[in-house]
Amino acid sequence: MPPVSVPQSLDRAHCEAADQADPFAPLRHAFQIPPGVIYLDGNSLGALPVQVPDRLAQVARTEWGQGLIRSWNDAGWIDLPRRVGTRIARLIGAQDNEVIATDSTSINLFKLLSAARALRPDRSVILTEAGNFPTDLYIAQALADQGTPGLEIRRVEREALRDALDESVAVVMLTQVDYRTGHKLDLAETTAAAHRVGALTLWDLAHSAGAFAVDLNAAQADFAVGCGYKYLNGGPGAPAFAFVAHRHLATVQQPLSGWLGHAAPFAFEPDYRPADGIERLLCGTPPILSMSALDTALDVFDEAHALGGLAGLGAKAQQLVEVFISGFEGRCAAGGLRLISPRDRTARGNQVSLAADDPARGWALMQALIARGVIGDFRAPNILRFGFAPLYLRQVDVWDAVEHLADLIDTRAWEDPRWQHRRAVT
Amino acid sequence: MPPVSVPQSLDRAHCEAADQADPFAPLRHAFQIPPGVIYLDGNSLGALPVQVPDRLAQVARTEWGQGLIRSWNDAGWIDLPRRVGTRIARLIGAQDNEVIATDSTSINLFKLLSAARALRPDRSVILTEAGNFPTDLYIAQALADQGTPGLEIRRVEREALRDALDESVAVVMLTQVDYRTGHKLDLAETTAAAHRVGALTLWDLAHSAGAFAVDLNAAQADFAVGCGYKYLNGGPGAPAFAFVAHRHLATVQQPLSGWLGHAAPFAFEPDYRPADGIERLLCGTPPILSMSALDTALDVFDEAHALGGLAGLGAKAQQLVEVFISGFEGRCAAGGLRLISPRDRTARGNQVSLAADDPARGWALMQALIARGVIGDFRAPNILRFGFAPLYLRQVDVWDAVEHLADLIDTRAWEDPRWQHRRAVT
Repeated sequence: MPPVSVPQSLDRAHCEAADQADPFAPLRHAFQIPPGVIYLDGNSLGALPVQVPDRLAQVARTEWGQGLIRSWNDAGWIDLPRRVGTRIARLIGAQDNEVIATDSTSINLFKLLSAARALRPDRSVILTEAGNFPTDLYIAQALADQGTPGLEIRRVEREALRDALDESVAVVMLTQVDYRTGHKLDLAETTAAAHRVGALTLWDLAHSAGAFAVDLNAAQADFAVGCGYKYLNGGPGAPAFAFVAHRHLATVQQPLSGWLGHAAPFAFEPDYRPADGIERLLCGTPPILSMSALDTALDVFDEAHALGGLAGLGAKAQQLVEVFISGFEGRCAAGGLRLISPRDRTARGNQVSLAADDPARGWALMQALIARGVIGDFRAPNILRFGFAPLYLRQVDVWDAVEHLADLIDTRAWEDPRWQHRRAVT
Repeated sequence: MPPVSVPQSLDRAHCEAADQADPFAPLRHAFQIPPGVIYLDGNSLGALPVQVPDRLAQVARTEWGQGLIRSWNDAGWIDLPRRVGTRIARLIGAQDNEVIATDSTSINLFKLLSAARALRPDRSVILTEAGNFPTDLYIAQALADQGTPGLEIRRVEREALRDALDESVAVVMLTQVDYRTGHKLDLAETTAAAHRVGALTLWDLAHSAGAFAVDLNAAQADFAVGCGYKYLNGGPGAPAFAFVAHRHLATVQQPLSGWLGHAAPFAFEPDYRPADGIERLLCGTPPILSMSALDTALDVFDEAHALGGLAGLGAKAQQLVEVFISGFEGRCAAGGLRLISPRDRTARGNQVSLAADDPARGWALMQALIARGVIGDFRAPNILRFGFAPLYLRQVDVWDAVEHLADLIDTRAWEDPRWQHRRAVT
């Protein structure tokens, strides 16, 4: 990763100059960013790629409307999960035949956690982080509650992971980037540590895929899942993906054995025989409309490859992060907010999190920012989250976002009665 | 159901007159049917409702593109699975709070089969039909293989179901309409028989929902799943649905405990607490684009309710079926095909299946029909399947379809070299 240089005397003109020099700058035009919006929530829902509505119209009107059932063959719907998986594979350091787009992240976690655990039948522990994303914890717990008796979910703090690794551990299940703080685990180092005690690894790449360079095969990772609607920009609830290292493909068995994971789905055999390849991770019929949007959203990465690829995008994102942090530290001191993301850029994802001393003030500040078009999000109990999607953000956006935050703090926006009541859903 | 009358001397003019008198005739205009196509495969993939492309454009351009993350609240995405479920509830005799649209049929089967079995912990058997749709059998088998030791999947022929019902049976899992023959089980009678021995019922309504009147609550059914892309016309791979009878809602626990099934998904609690209501059937983030298409597709049923509802639609479909069967029997005798759907219209769904004495000829005939725009499908080893979706089919369509079939038989279409090689996927 090239060094990140943020001038001491950073100002908006510096940001504009940096944007001029940004090789990825043209890719912003591949997205619809509403006028007046600075979108810092691409880590929750990526922006709309401008080609998606036309693709949806074409899939609906032509493939579905005209082709009807024939489009499973003629438009290649049946192969879409594999084709989209192949495109994602290139973003995460996987081979073409190791990734498939299917179902949700939670469901893919269930499949792969069960599958991984079955490969270590003599071991009783699934090791994870106490602060892992809740759905990951819930799925692990459900597997323990209904599956093999004696299976133990060992939840430890991040710092205690190494010490908790022993030969009772079947699977280490971790999310690479912490959804609250943006802390990033070292994929290769952690995988190697797991392998040293004979454990398998299952990575959740929700905040990694499409955000920066991930190299699953270089790390010899065993299994991974990830999300289609964050940095991959596939649209709300886009299909997720699942990765199985080639060496496990022939032996991995997953419990959601629906017909499309069968070796011959249209033979309608009474007994399940898993497909030879990564298709065995499929279950039911995939949502083709949502999957097609994700497919089109991945086009921009073809261009990004030519401009510096995921390594370059990750470096760009870290520059955006540095601009935000330096601006926050210089101009927002009176806000009762403190940085909880790592200062070390090698240890963080494309995200900055600020914890509010007073949760209600923190919540009010985020609502006031959103009302001005600076869209981040709030995570209970007291975290303001800002994501930096390098495909469509500029340094001037980040500069302006900090200006808004500073102004809201200076004007004590939390006293505005509009932000006194919290909504039910964030 | 009103009596079905097919005149002895049926001809095309009779069909035209019947179409003129059909109260549901205006609903055909709600669908895009390609010119020259007679679509008899709505039981595999429903036709495109004309409003869907505009809805998709609006969801993509406005809700996603402009609203971005805010649309989870502002556009009501977070409630969409429940709202769509409520609309489906009205089609299957359920209360508003008993149905949710989510995931695929296979995955919902896994959830509910596991949940139902857990309500009868002292019983060891899941009873099903040997000829049930394969994915149903695979999912049941997977649950037995990885779940509670001693769980037995008892597969019996349809005729033997009654005798196989005893007090060892925890759950009776059945598909109401057989995908090969179109045979329809009596929902109320079968459910009552299961209840008499203390078993619960799990119904797969894939070929029932939207096809004819289903009354889950009148039958006191316990659980059901169904498909969004067949007679509900939600588009390829549309989200499926799950039904839980109100009396089970408080106690039912399903193993795919993802965050959106949590009582407070955005509280990010470390432990799973299921939502109070039917939301506990949710798992991961739903595919909003595909879900929105399904939502729009359900609009036509609002009109259908006013015109005679599902009972009327089911009766219309049976008239279409009768026209097909009478035409087939009168004009297609030389084809080496025999009717394997029930003659008794109370015992069949909206489907006619013909078995070919010579599978290769049967396959060739279906390909030749499709080449002429008469779209049915072929199910291994030797079945020609024709579905009659009453929302958009007319009697003249059925008449013409039979004419084509008769002509292809008369001209020995199976000798055409184009139909000598079978495709990989049907």
